[in-house]
Amino acid sequence: MKKANKKVQAAIVVIGNEILSGRTQDLNVSFLAKWLNELGVSVAEVRIIEDKEETIIDCINEIKNNFKYIFTTGGIGPTHDDITSKSIAKAFNLTYGFHKEAYDILEKYYKAEKFSEGRKKMAKMPDKATLIYNPSSGAPGFIVENVFCLPGVPSILKSMVEGLKNKIVGGKKILSETISVHAVESEIAKSLEEVQNQFKDVEIGSYPFFRLGKIGVSIVMRSIEKKEIDDCYKEIVSFLKKKEIRIIER
Amino acid sequence: MKKANKKVQAAIVVIGNEILSGRTQDLNVSFLAKWLNELGVSVAEVRIIEDKEETIIDCINEIKNNFKYIFTTGGIGPTHDDITSKSIAKAFNLTYGFHKEAYDILEKYYKAEKFSEGRKKMAKMPDKATLIYNPSSGAPGFIVENVFCLPGVPSILKSMVEGLKNKIVGGKKILSETISVHAVESEIAKSLEEVQNQFKDVEIGSYPFFRLGKIGVSIVMRSIEKKEIDDCYKEIVSFLKKKEIRIIER
Repeated sequence: MKKANKKVQAAIVVIGNEILSGRTQDLNVSFLAKWLNELGVSVAEVRIIEDKEETIIDCINEIKNNFKYIFTTGGIGPTHDDITSKSIAKAFNLTYGFHKEAYDILEKYYKAEKFSEGRKKMAKMPDKATLIYNPSSGAPGFIVENVFCLPGVPSILKSMVEGLKNKIVGGKKILSETISVHAVESEIAKSLEEVQNQFKDVEIGSYPFFRLGKIGVSIVMRSIEKKEIDDCYKEIVSFLKKKEIRIIER
Repeated sequence: MKKANKKVQAAIVVIGNEILSGRTQDLNVSFLAKWLNELGVSVAEVRIIEDKEETIIDCINEIKNNFKYIFTTGGIGPTHDDITSKSIAKAFNLTYGFHKEAYDILEKYYKAEKFSEGRKKMAKMPDKATLIYNPSSGAPGFIVENVFCLPGVPSILKSMVEGLKNKIVGGKKILSETISVHAVESEIAKSLEEVQNQFKDVEIGSYPFFRLGKIGVSIVMRSIEKKEIDDCYKEIVSFLKKKEIRIIER
């Protein structure tokens, strides 16, 4: 894509052995990707890594300058395997300790008598981190430079990102159109490639599906240029008609 | 984990803009991770990357020596956005062209009259690649050195891996035990950390859940040592009893 460098790009780092073992199905990547798309930010890479300090530090240092925003999910809870906060502090050479504002929030949330050691750990963060407030369970996430640290539990993560919108400066929103047809990919491959060559600013994807026993293809067009996507769309509909391929939905 | 270096590790590279855009929920990572676990291979890293030749080549070159096995998913179909085969060929400096055996398989599968240009593209592979047979839709995947290239459609991927078992030499099988309790993480955090410090060869994870309106925690123990996992399990059950925490399932 010629205009790829115009895009605002993010990466997601999923921190969690439970995802790598297959025990837990990650659901945060698709949620965050769609949420970021709406803000004009496209996710260009995802890494799923182990709960290991060295691995987290290396990963963050390797990618933090390649993307405008980095989102991490997981590892900010109260147990021994929650090591994201400490690792991020080390990655940025910041002191790791009690964060005054986070401590106050958690103390108030749990009341003094229920503010146990485990819970206090959730107030430990890199020095000077900006908090990401948590409307559903108290414990905040945090931001260090361009790295946004969120929890792994999908429902809590979802409740927290709403407050982040004003912290994300995206580019033009990525628009998309989908045409689903009753066809196999090979029937449309050549024509689709010709259309792709004609519309360099539209990213055309072709995804086969099997639905209710029928085989089909979803053709997805993505671009920040409304006019381009409209013209591309017409071109695709035109070759589908010529080939007498039935459009299921669009 | 002290014995981490004894483990046989794999990485998964998911190639596909449709996963990065959030349009499609990846399901292959958890399937492959569980399948590999059974064979004594643990997935230590996953990367989800764009359908871009340069990105694929760089990713493969960066990680191919870090893991015993690399599995790629996606991008081996007939359309213009399927560029995995060509990119893998470039990553290994191999010629990309018609693979005799793959060509014969596809020609037979589609019969001569239906063996269109698009379908022929699926017979193009890196020179000398070993085929991964496809019992559900004909088009094979392939292996180059330690890189196994599979399709993105989950049902097809699943049908193909069965034939791969004899190509994977894993280590000891990773065993796991789970105890789910009615508790919040902070109640068990300290005791769990003490158990973790006692059992260095067991990886203990703590995962909060919200199920049917109740809050709980799943404690997951993973190890290749049966004895260690059994002893660790007893230790955890023992502190749960002392704390009068109810075990929901184990």
